[in-house]
Amino acid sequence: MILNDPATLAEVTAQFMRYEAALTTNDVAVLDELFWDSPLTLRYGATEILHGYDEIKAFRAGRSGQGLKRTLLRTVITTYGTDFATCNTTFQREGSDRIGRQSQSWARIPDVGWRVVAAHVSLMG
Amino acid sequence: MILNDPATLAEVTAQFMRYEAALTTNDVAVLDELFWDSPLTLRYGATEILHGYDEIKAFRAGRSGQGLKRTLLRTVITTYGTDFATCNTTFQREGSDRIGRQSQSWARIPDVGWRVVAAHVSLMG
Repeated sequence: MILNDPATLAEVTAQFMRYEAALTTNDVAVLDELFWDSPLTLRYGATEILHGYDEIKAFRAGRSGQGLKRTLLRTVITTYGTDFATCNTTFQREGSDRIGRQSQSWARIPDVGWRVVAAHVSLMG
Repeated sequence: MILNDPATLAEVTAQFMRYEAALTTNDVAVLDELFWDSPLTLRYGATEILHGYDEIKAFRAGRSGQGLKRTLLRTVITTYGTDFATCNTTFQREGSDRIGRQSQSWARIPDVGWRVVAAHVSLMG
């Protein structure tokens, strides 16, 4: 298993940054695109537990676009082989003292490309 | 990519359950065994941010073994190919009303076996 293959790491990092830009501008189309369209996908959010792509998509559609700006503090992206990656980052929202943590597992889905297959976001404490 | 190959899913599920048994009995040797021994490994805990295996190991060594009993509520284990898996579960600790969430990414590390490469634990709200 090749760890952090440079080409794979570059691909995943680009998609991670696309996701980050979409999140902070509430670009729902890109957020929807980057989560795996499967009943197996899940997202544990700061205040919600979402099982399956449909629940995640409904959450995105109903979310306010206000107050989403944030600064990433420490980001660790690791690729395992050429088809799997973990992206983890700590962050701080504008106007908040609390430290957030975002974990994503990404897989290269055949015929589709890199997608988040599981995600977990929480605030410390 | 084979999704949820039965043999792979059985292997990962067995290791996930080993981890769960070790966690609730504070079996530090098994907990240490099942995390990947790498500076890239990370664990976001309910009240801590741990980067690298050494920080995770030090946390385990210093943790009280009291109050770790819990019930798993809804568990989703998914394997992608034969070398990668996500294990996600919600849980409730004895004597607590709060819902916890635990996310793990597992990889089959060459010459070693299945290991947690990234983990995130948080309580709702």
